[in-house]
Amino acid sequence: MPEISEQEYSQQRLQQVNEALGSGMFVYVRKLLQNMPAYDLALILESSPTKSRTILWQLIDHDHHGEVLEELNEEVRKGILKNIRPEKLAAVAEGMDVDDLAEVLRTLPDSVYREVLNSMDSQDRSRVETALSYEEDTAGGIMNTDTMTIRPDVTVDVVLRYLRLKGELPEATDSFYVVDRQDHFIGAVSLTAIVTSKPEEVISSLIDEEITAINVEMPETEVAQLFERYDWVSAPVIDEEKHLLGRITIDDVVDIIREEAEHSMMSMAGLDDEADTFAPIVKSTQQRSIWLGVNLVTALMAVAVSSMFEEILGQLAILAILNTLVPSMGGVAGNQTLTLVIRGIALGHVGESNSKALLYKELAVGFLNGIIWALLIATVVALWKQDMVLGGVIAFAMLMNLTAAGIAGVSIPLILKKMDIDPALAGSVILTTITDVVGIFAFLGTATLFLGT
Amino acid sequence: MPEISEQEYSQQRLQQVNEALGSGMFVYVRKLLQNMPAYDLALILESSPTKSRTILWQLIDHDHHGEVLEELNEEVRKGILKNIRPEKLAAVAEGMDVDDLAEVLRTLPDSVYREVLNSMDSQDRSRVETALSYEEDTAGGIMNTDTMTIRPDVTVDVVLRYLRLKGELPEATDSFYVVDRQDHFIGAVSLTAIVTSKPEEVISSLIDEEITAINVEMPETEVAQLFERYDWVSAPVIDEEKHLLGRITIDDVVDIIREEAEHSMMSMAGLDDEADTFAPIVKSTQQRSIWLGVNLVTALMAVAVSSMFEEILGQLAILAILNTLVPSMGGVAGNQTLTLVIRGIALGHVGESNSKALLYKELAVGFLNGIIWALLIATVVALWKQDMVLGGVIAFAMLMNLTAAGIAGVSIPLILKKMDIDPALAGSVILTTITDVVGIFAFLGTATLFLGT
Repeated sequence: MPEISEQEYSQQRLQQVNEALGSGMFVYVRKLLQNMPAYDLALILESSPTKSRTILWQLIDHDHHGEVLEELNEEVRKGILKNIRPEKLAAVAEGMDVDDLAEVLRTLPDSVYREVLNSMDSQDRSRVETALSYEEDTAGGIMNTDTMTIRPDVTVDVVLRYLRLKGELPEATDSFYVVDRQDHFIGAVSLTAIVTSKPEEVISSLIDEEITAINVEMPETEVAQLFERYDWVSAPVIDEEKHLLGRITIDDVVDIIREEAEHSMMSMAGLDDEADTFAPIVKSTQQRSIWLGVNLVTALMAVAVSSMFEEILGQLAILAILNTLVPSMGGVAGNQTLTLVIRGIALGHVGESNSKALLYKELAVGFLNGIIWALLIATVVALWKQDMVLGGVIAFAMLMNLTAAGIAGVSIPLILKKMDIDPALAGSVILTTITDVVGIFAFLGTATLFLGT
Repeated sequence: MPEISEQEYSQQRLQQVNEALGSGMFVYVRKLLQNMPAYDLALILESSPTKSRTILWQLIDHDHHGEVLEELNEEVRKGILKNIRPEKLAAVAEGMDVDDLAEVLRTLPDSVYREVLNSMDSQDRSRVETALSYEEDTAGGIMNTDTMTIRPDVTVDVVLRYLRLKGELPEATDSFYVVDRQDHFIGAVSLTAIVTSKPEEVISSLIDEEITAINVEMPETEVAQLFERYDWVSAPVIDEEKHLLGRITIDDVVDIIREEAEHSMMSMAGLDDEADTFAPIVKSTQQRSIWLGVNLVTALMAVAVSSMFEEILGQLAILAILNTLVPSMGGVAGNQTLTLVIRGIALGHVGESNSKALLYKELAVGFLNGIIWALLIATVVALWKQDMVLGGVIAFAMLMNLTAAGIAGVSIPLILKKMDIDPALAGSVILTTITDVVGIFAFLGTATLFLGT
């Protein structure tokens, strides 16, 4: 075992590669990259500035290009594919899994995509075209076609003899699929059952009832849930007529789980979950500016509400100074509820059956926290400015806004979900608008009533 | 295949269970719960209010209690364990995997934990005590001891005969571990190799070089990276002297990956990643109030900065109205950079070797976006208030703050990481403080210079 951690080791290697690249020691870089697994090569490409990526790509052993493409983040991959000629891409494609190749092809411009398909041999092309005919985020889009099938009436001994003849199995094969002559899926027999059963045992008696087939149109997030629920390593995929089409393996499911969990976090900041950390400056600026624009509209709404109270703001500068406090606390409290509910929806904890209970709970939490912070801030302000009325005004606004934040934090994501809008993406903007508007209105409105002259 | 989605189905079932529970139809509920897998039972418990959980727990078939505990979220599990007597818990523990049982025991109060251990038989107790001797978040903490070992000098035929005698294998067994007489790990032989090789082949010639052993002290996040890198289904765990101690399986790794990805999102909102969606109101209020308190301090710092400009705020009410605009945009922009960098650190993309390049990039992105929004907001304000100087003042402040946001968004998480503080937890508070202070200072400061009388 190395004394340093994996992460430090990765960083050291990355530095080594980049320094060698900077000094133009290309032969050395090529040597460094030679024995790395595809995952590490992808990590190095993702961690390097865009201008180094093209050179690094050339220095990677061409036989590994396919595997590296499979591992790459989508945005980074697109950048690299732009610089590869279609004929070359067809050569790279040969070594790739059908599901990964289909994923790569989907991101290409139409003309290039056609050209790549045309330069493939007809058998490969038809396999890829089948994969492309399924929706990207469904079981069909992530399945592979390298299944091992057997007939129900053969014995374990026959299977073992066949396997010895074959000499190898597709990766992550933990079960064989039993099919009839029309390729209808009958059931699965685990590799474990094959090695622990007597040679004369008939396959049909070994079928594992726990392994059920996945419909080709099932969304990939549900596929991931099934894998988590039953601890599967692989699962068969069938069509409506129960024809066996392929299988899904755990490594693809792991990617889905990671992407799904990252998606919420990135979306809440208005970022694409496939965002390239080292994207070119102009591209990043463009991507970010959309979100900033949306937020400017939100911020201008807060300004508009404040401007309704121009008169009292002109009279009392202290109101201007304190005006940010209530919206800020409301935003933080609302965002906590929002995050909890978004995670709850993703995990399947929150839905129609318990949304009312959750609403009451968060309303109560908001109200209680409202009381706590209202009392505290009222005391601080009353002592600081020797003004009990001002203290009362800000306390009232705080209580109103934290209660509103609790209600908004639960209802916004649920309403968005119903409208088929991603709550992680739109939720926080809408929430902040509400907590800003309610906060300013409650504070300056009450102030006008009690402090205006 | 059902016509409705998995998620809708879960929600329907949850509603069914809760309605039946509400009407006191306990026998029916028990029947509903009887044939559900442990994952679904855990989901139902997690999705129910705390007061229903105790009853539901009683209605779940007691033989399934162990499996359900394994699947439960930590906070929910603690709540349920509080109500179980130690003797009962010992009975539940019998059916559990050693790694999961150790995890459960760690969360118990010392007295209960001792009592549970004492009521177990000595063999089980010693296995659990060994598991407990390893750190929770390391390979030792997540490994299981159910390994299949074989000697290097036997033949495939002998192994197959042994397996047939044994009749079953531990879950997710995709390879056997070859050990010498002192239990030193020599290598792994895949189940695939066993079934595809000739009966007379010797085990030592079938060792798979791709499967390397994991040190028992390796942090679990690094274990997860290795599984992702090499697409492992299971991996052996060894100590410093290369003794085989156990193995880690992909289902535990999937949990780690999900938790890790959720952790960032929850921490950024100041929530614990094991937070119970339906926690009791008082508990939730307490947990949230800490974060709100921290944010109140931040908000008061912004108030303090504003109060330094009381004079000019008193003169020009329009400054009070516009005062939220620049800090708000800075907060959003900074948060985007922060989120990108936090994800980059978690994925191993960002470290010392490329932090400078990232800083320049985000500085440039912040500056460019600063120019865009400065120009836009200057135009809006100049047209609205017919005041070119005011437009210039807010434009300058916007440019300053978005640039500062870019710098802060990259440097804060990197500095926190170096200080061993979780960037996801502390990052956004510190960032918001900076963008608030810089934004208000730049806006009101410049206004004092150019608009003050």
